[in-house]
Amino acid sequence: VAGQPRTRLALDERRAQLLALGQEMFSARSYDEISIDEIAAAAGVSKGLLYHYFPTKRDFYVAGLREAAAEIRALTEPDLSLPPAERLQHSLRAYLDYVETHAVGFRSLLRGGIGSDAEVRAILDETRAGTEARVLDGIGLVDPPPAVRLALRGWLAFVEEVSLEWLDRREPDRDTLVDVLMVVLGSAVEAAARAG
Amino acid sequence: VAGQPRTRLALDERRAQLLALGQEMFSARSYDEISIDEIAAAAGVSKGLLYHYFPTKRDFYVAGLREAAAEIRALTEPDLSLPPAERLQHSLRAYLDYVETHAVGFRSLLRGGIGSDAEVRAILDETRAGTEARVLDGIGLVDPPPAVRLALRGWLAFVEEVSLEWLDRREPDRDTLVDVLMVVLGSAVEAAARAG
Repeated sequence: VAGQPRTRLALDERRAQLLALGQEMFSARSYDEISIDEIAAAAGVSKGLLYHYFPTKRDFYVAGLREAAAEIRALTEPDLSLPPAERLQHSLRAYLDYVETHAVGFRSLLRGGIGSDAEVRAILDETRAGTEARVLDGIGLVDPPPAVRLALRGWLAFVEEVSLEWLDRREPDRDTLVDVLMVVLGSAVEAAARAG
Repeated sequence: VAGQPRTRLALDERRAQLLALGQEMFSARSYDEISIDEIAAAAGVSKGLLYHYFPTKRDFYVAGLREAAAEIRALTEPDLSLPPAERLQHSLRAYLDYVETHAVGFRSLLRGGIGSDAEVRAILDETRAGTEARVLDGIGLVDPPPAVRLALRGWLAFVEEVSLEWLDRREPDRDTLVDVLMVVLGSAVEAAARAG
């Protein structure tokens, strides 16, 4: 019993290492191109051990996505000590920091390859819905009209696309990019609110 | 020889029918879920005939995408008799008309399921690059700085996402939505131009 925590930790660490490796591999090549054999070989473990953690390649992939989504969510948690408008700016900075330091995993999350899979879609949708709720909170809207919701979804897509492209050149700098994103959010919500 | 044009036409028509059916099926369910057997059965043709047109399921899928992309491109061709700014508005209206009348095919193009496939990615990238060039023409920019290019890519993602969501409720009306899209484009490009 005394050794159990350490064993559990070792198991969790191994699992996390496998997931990190998976994010890296799936981000460089497509889901279909990568086999379980290749993953096991790259990780230096037996296929049997890999299957012990993840019964199928899809399970492995989905677990990696879930991990990345949870990480982003935690890192961009609004800082409630800040005024609402600054919370959003703060979260966007944290988001871009994540994007920068986890470039590979981030690409994997958004462009990994099985976006039509129901569970993958659900993880992305859930992440986006969570972000949407935070943004609504940040701009102080409780029950916005359909056009504003539409604009918010559009803005989230804007942020995702720009973040992915930004990784290639890192221009402009992070804070300037956050300013641009805030301006676009403001004008999109305003124009949509006028549209009703 | 006299009968050849009619035969060719019949072949093209059959091919177009198969592609339309494919867009419908791939839009309702994911790429992996649909088998060649099922496609042949739904089309009321033999697997052999289907393979005659499209050697693999992937070929079939990619041909459908290519078709939809070409159609969108043709329909949103800028009307050069209009002033540049109005050209863009005009193309956006035509784009939303396409989205509305080809809802199924449009969903298939953007969310069909093998987005990580290199050829699929290339079709989407090519379509987006073509749209980007038109938008640059529309706003009179020849060689924009990186931040503006970034904002344009973000705006294209905004437009795609909003169009997809718009299909569910069709609110606000088409022209109002085009106005919102134009406002967002203007503010995004302006903010990005200031950012350098």
